[in-house]
Amino acid sequence: MVSPCTVAVVLFEGFEVLDVFGPVELLSRVPGWSVTFLGPATDQPVRSAQGADVVARSAFTDLDHADILLVPGGPGTRPLVRDLAFLRALCTLADRSSTVASVCTGSALLAAAGLLDGRRATSNKLAWAWASSQGHSVAWVPQARWVVDGNFWTSSGVAAGMDMAHALITAINGVAVADRIAKDIELEVHRDPDLDPFSGIHGVV
Amino acid sequence: MVSPCTVAVVLFEGFEVLDVFGPVELLSRVPGWSVTFLGPATDQPVRSAQGADVVARSAFTDLDHADILLVPGGPGTRPLVRDLAFLRALCTLADRSSTVASVCTGSALLAAAGLLDGRRATSNKLAWAWASSQGHSVAWVPQARWVVDGNFWTSSGVAAGMDMAHALITAINGVAVADRIAKDIELEVHRDPDLDPFSGIHGVV
Repeated sequence: MVSPCTVAVVLFEGFEVLDVFGPVELLSRVPGWSVTFLGPATDQPVRSAQGADVVARSAFTDLDHADILLVPGGPGTRPLVRDLAFLRALCTLADRSSTVASVCTGSALLAAAGLLDGRRATSNKLAWAWASSQGHSVAWVPQARWVVDGNFWTSSGVAAGMDMAHALITAINGVAVADRIAKDIELEVHRDPDLDPFSGIHGVV
Repeated sequence: MVSPCTVAVVLFEGFEVLDVFGPVELLSRVPGWSVTFLGPATDQPVRSAQGADVVARSAFTDLDHADILLVPGGPGTRPLVRDLAFLRALCTLADRSSTVASVCTGSALLAAAGLLDGRRATSNKLAWAWASSQGHSVAWVPQARWVVDGNFWTSSGVAAGMDMAHALITAINGVAVADRIAKDIELEVHRDPDLDPFSGIHGVV
């Protein structure tokens, strides 16, 4: 039995394309799940760090409810951690979502918004010092492919978002559904959230 | 010494997002490389199979030259193998590109256009029967993560495009550049083009 699920993706200038489209590739393949893209304004393109313009279907303020809110990282997060209007909008989006999942430095945004206070979380290992300086009382986990604390899921850098998406599908609809999708897209997934091949490589311990 | 390189990505209705943005994530990180997006019309959004609208910066007819032409797959390839106007445009794009690289069923488009005649190539293993029925005299390789024949690179399904992109960067700018990028985006890459974990799983032998 597969549960239907609505996924809303937060787009902002300078988002990282694989942070978005790695998880979206998996999440959109679950039967009955739908994915939509939110941005500063309805029907306006949002430029990624890689130069691709992706159209936001709805404005942040239009979201009534999402089962999963996906928050990517990317160089665009650097100014946004000081952008109070954006951080307030992010808090509203998170309030309206059952589960909040970030990839890479998306967790820096959640932390800066205060959403991770008192929670365990991880982030990109390349940008660890900066990302983990956000938030007042986040229990940052330096060695993790992804971390789950309540309804907040945070993954490590870029490619780790696909492993988190596989785990998220597993948690909601079971491993058979998640594994079929990984097989169909020829993706070898990491299944252990604590196994982090990159924390040591980047000197994050 | 890093060579500059222009990458042009072919967008069409129903393209697969990870076929595009997996490789783009890697290719766009090479210093001096630039990525642009081509579609049927300039500045028009092209809808992916996953519902994301990505804006084509230029029309197919506008391309003068690309060092790498990236051709994704996706369900949108099914009607396009019978679309003679598209196939003619694809031949022109390939003629104007030094290297042509396809992901997933993107190779079915190249085959239908006659571009792979007399060449070795691979494709998505889930859609193998259909993809490998395209083209008149393609030497389809059923067990390969990716295949290189002259200036044509073809990868297996979806996630395999990232491994091919790593190999392409290695071929042009060396393994140190490619490995740094994989490390930065926390991607564990397949380095052996002949090691295909999914051909057996999908019964392609």
